[in-house]
Amino acid sequence: MNIPSKYLEEAVEQFSSLPGIGKRTALRLVLNLLKREPDELERFGDILQQLKSHVQSCSSCGNISDTAICSICSNEKRNHRLICVVEDIRDVMAIESTGTYQGIYHVLGGIISPMDGIGPNDLFIQPLVDKCAAGQADEIILALSPTMEGDTTNFFLYKKLHATNVQITALSRGIAVGSEIQYADEITLSRSIQQRIPFQS
Amino acid sequence: MNIPSKYLEEAVEQFSSLPGIGKRTALRLVLNLLKREPDELERFGDILQQLKSHVQSCSSCGNISDTAICSICSNEKRNHRLICVVEDIRDVMAIESTGTYQGIYHVLGGIISPMDGIGPNDLFIQPLVDKCAAGQADEIILALSPTMEGDTTNFFLYKKLHATNVQITALSRGIAVGSEIQYADEITLSRSIQQRIPFQS
Ligand SMILES: [Zn+2]
Ligand SMILES: [Zn+2]
Repeated sequence: MNIPSKYLEEAVEQFSSLPGIGKRTALRLVLNLLKREPDELERFGDILQQLKSHVQSCSSCGNISDTAICSICSNEKRNHRLICVVEDIRDVMAIESTGTYQGIYHVLGGIISPMDGIGPNDLFIQPLVDKCAAGQADEIILALSPTMEGDTTNFFLYKKLHATNVQITALSRGIAVGSEIQYADEITLSRSIQQRIPFQS
Repeated sequence: MNIPSKYLEEAVEQFSSLPGIGKRTALRLVLNLLKREPDELERFGDILQQLKSHVQSCSSCGNISDTAICSICSNEKRNHRLICVVEDIRDVMAIESTGTYQGIYHVLGGIISPMDGIGPNDLFIQPLVDKCAAGQADEIILALSPTMEGDTTNFFLYKKLHATNVQITALSRGIAVGSEIQYADEITLSRSIQQRIPFQS
């Protein structure tokens, strides 16, 4: 593409650095932005620049939060001895939207995937192991997507946790094999949590 | 979606205000940005904020440019009496990439579309009419997409221009009816320009 403005080209490069956004799509987005008022672009830019300083990871569970401890971990009414392990904050959002889960979460921030070069050390795992070893949990629900990577990660966590006397369960497989937790409908997801089963390694 | 951070939510709102980007996609983009270094986000924000002050419309042809007059209009080697009328700068980019067109352009910045509330007054038309009326052009090539809106716009331009003695041609229809100029392959597009035909109202 021969873009007739180097400033436009830089903006297109920024947008096409995002996952799933090609050059053509990026150009369409930037041409749309060019039609807006300067103060709208000012605001968009400010939000990008302030994103990382405002948004943090909950130091207890790894969920995204505006505070050091997230609103779920700081909620006294939740069962802090029941911990649901998920890959991503989008899974927390999906499970929270069912309105049926009263425990807390542990967000790994990814899944073990040798193909993508992601190993256990790249994930937020140790604080979960520490909590279990310190006797702070009764039950861990493994709620990773039923894919090969999810199974690998489940097995790794099982090996780390089974000596700690914590009960390890997994979501009931109402969710179709190969599909992602975050795209499951609320009823299926809600039932999978209620009907969770002991994890079998 | 119940996003656990209001700053994250604001960023998601900004991205989902872009055409074709839903909330889920926007969240995926923002989570990707969160993994970047702060100086990368700083730069992305700066580019957005400076976009409108750096990128301008060529006052002569409506093409996007870093200068008041674009590089095509200021190129003495091009034939300034041959003007190709297009909807969008992406059409300029598509025709330029064929490397076979030596005239200049006129970028309308849209197409007449009563359905979308876009009339002739919303488009960059008058400077083209003025150029033709002043005898500054020999030939106008109508290179709008062969859709109903393109035909409507062609007919409007024909009515405005046919009294000015300028020759009005249209792209040969090697391009499939209903498809967009910018997605045509270079050979088809190149041939359509060479084999342009007198415009028939
Ligand atoms: Zn938390
Ligand atoms: Zn120009």
